[in-house]
Amino acid sequence: MKTFNIQQPDETLRLAIQDKIDNLNKPKGSLGRLEGLAMQVCLIQQTLTPSLAYPCHLLLGGDHGIEREGVSVSPREVTWQQMVNFTRGGGGVNMFCRQHGFDLRIVDVGVDHDLSGVDGIIDRKIARGTKNFLYEPAMSEAEMEQAIHIGIDLVDDCIGEGCRVLCIGEMGIANTSPSSVWMSLFGQIPLAECIGAGAGLDSPGIRHKCEVLTQAVERFLKTSPHYTTEEAIRYFGGFEMVVAIGAMLRAAERHLVILVDGFIMTACALAACQIAPAAQPYMVFTHCGDESGHRKMLDLLHAQPLLHLGLRLGEGTGALCAFPIVDSAVRMMNEMNNFNNAKITKYF
Amino acid sequence: MKTFNIQQPDETLRLAIQDKIDNLNKPKGSLGRLEGLAMQVCLIQQTLTPSLAYPCHLLLGGDHGIEREGVSVSPREVTWQQMVNFTRGGGGVNMFCRQHGFDLRIVDVGVDHDLSGVDGIIDRKIARGTKNFLYEPAMSEAEMEQAIHIGIDLVDDCIGEGCRVLCIGEMGIANTSPSSVWMSLFGQIPLAECIGAGAGLDSPGIRHKCEVLTQAVERFLKTSPHYTTEEAIRYFGGFEMVVAIGAMLRAAERHLVILVDGFIMTACALAACQIAPAAQPYMVFTHCGDESGHRKMLDLLHAQPLLHLGLRLGEGTGALCAFPIVDSAVRMMNEMNNFNNAKITKYF
Repeated sequence: MKTFNIQQPDETLRLAIQDKIDNLNKPKGSLGRLEGLAMQVCLIQQTLTPSLAYPCHLLLGGDHGIEREGVSVSPREVTWQQMVNFTRGGGGVNMFCRQHGFDLRIVDVGVDHDLSGVDGIIDRKIARGTKNFLYEPAMSEAEMEQAIHIGIDLVDDCIGEGCRVLCIGEMGIANTSPSSVWMSLFGQIPLAECIGAGAGLDSPGIRHKCEVLTQAVERFLKTSPHYTTEEAIRYFGGFEMVVAIGAMLRAAERHLVILVDGFIMTACALAACQIAPAAQPYMVFTHCGDESGHRKMLDLLHAQPLLHLGLRLGEGTGALCAFPIVDSAVRMMNEMNNFNNAKITKYF
Repeated sequence: MKTFNIQQPDETLRLAIQDKIDNLNKPKGSLGRLEGLAMQVCLIQQTLTPSLAYPCHLLLGGDHGIEREGVSVSPREVTWQQMVNFTRGGGGVNMFCRQHGFDLRIVDVGVDHDLSGVDGIIDRKIARGTKNFLYEPAMSEAEMEQAIHIGIDLVDDCIGEGCRVLCIGEMGIANTSPSSVWMSLFGQIPLAECIGAGAGLDSPGIRHKCEVLTQAVERFLKTSPHYTTEEAIRYFGGFEMVVAIGAMLRAAERHLVILVDGFIMTACALAACQIAPAAQPYMVFTHCGDESGHRKMLDLLHAQPLLHLGLRLGEGTGALCAFPIVDSAVRMMNEMNNFNNAKITKYF
């Protein structure tokens, strides 16, 4: 797989940033999590005056072979229907993008439907859905490489517009399944603890999902007992998920702030950090949803999500919903007076 | 005290609102807390198409006689210095108001400093600080009535501009002290469990604060063993806090959405709900800070705050920080397609 040259943010500026934060006209630490966020963004951008210019949201759509096994409550045609719906502005993701000024880029990277004539969808289709990983790898090596490069290209396009903060969302019926498998493999957590209701499975549905995924993982482990991270990504991943991994790694390489959404995007972040641990300091974990296992996956990454609002829509909506908080942190650095120029008795 | 005519929101529309929410093109319940918020705002406004037009933030400043007892880490002059600083745009509250489009109204209702010549401060000063409630009631009956009416006037002015959502913040050194006392009296919680570090007291400081407040409450109970809510409000309250109570009650009476900030504003909300329990459905509890006791006070009100970001700046910043989430809930109702017009297979 393509290698990325990702450096941990240089720590030299930390003291100067902390000094600036501590001298803003407020009791020390009184802006709580905003202060830690400000530190993170300043370190990523190596500056005392950070910027969240030109926020972009990549909405990546793809279908999954494993959907054929009845692991999802929704049928696969919902993927393309929603992709079309997003172009009309009526989805959850559209509303959040409008609210927070994000440039929304709707990208077909593997939807099982001909969307080439649909205005507003960027056509980077790799194939019409992945293969069914109960029987074979979801994608070939060439397809995986292609997906990583699509992620790189998409990020580079955003940066070309001046983007400093990236959000990624997904639309792909059944994509909690590969997410659960990655969580289990990369986190060494029993599969049953990684499987939840997705978009609304009942208990028998969850049991069935667990049986299917267990069987799939057993077969994978039989043929690849000493698998690499890349192999696990390729065997189970959705196209939209591998594109997201490529995008995250490129965004880290190019010092963007990455807003990581819910269960599926956290699984992609986990995979990206398996490949390049230095990518993690570029990630802001935005939301912990109700999907069973999400909290555990965040714990694996020692991540403290910003929001707990019970969102489970996907599309990147949790990350978008948290954007104003990151924005507040950046504004704190740029807009608040310090004790000297505000002529205020320093509190303590 | 003036009486308010506050009605619980009419529940007749509930089913129609829920039906609209459930038919938006998303899995049922998948927007989590946003869906409950949308319901609340729709019921308050008695509509399926809610609005958060002309958001206003009242920043109320006042000083406290009890500050003389050394219960706060900051000296009282910080109150007026910060009030002046807010007029220059460099405070935390300014940054949040700019970010979220709030009309900020900085009101002196009892600061111990002549601010009458300062541009940008609305002069509704009742007195130069309250009296010291260790020895006597903080304010007279006439002053309390005046404070309630100032709250009413301020809200009516906002409504005159088209305001549908109100946020209230405070600047008043030592105002965690009356807040703790109210929490203890109205919640019947031992005082020690209601007292925290305020803006940064150390352990001996907290012990001292506890001793002072315990003594004050004992004296109050000796003279008023069968005290009314109004008496407790008047004896301990800060001017900015009683104005906030008046504003909350008026806002509920006039069907505004009220964003309730941290520890001090939650204490005011608790007091307002003691007077008129029907006011509570108009309140959105926005943030649970680290101030010891805040969580307990929210529990008293059975309130689930939206954010847990460790903010303890005051000024209403927690409530302002949560505004975009309420805004998202409203946008969900107004901007998302439903399954019919989006032509999407209903998920389940």
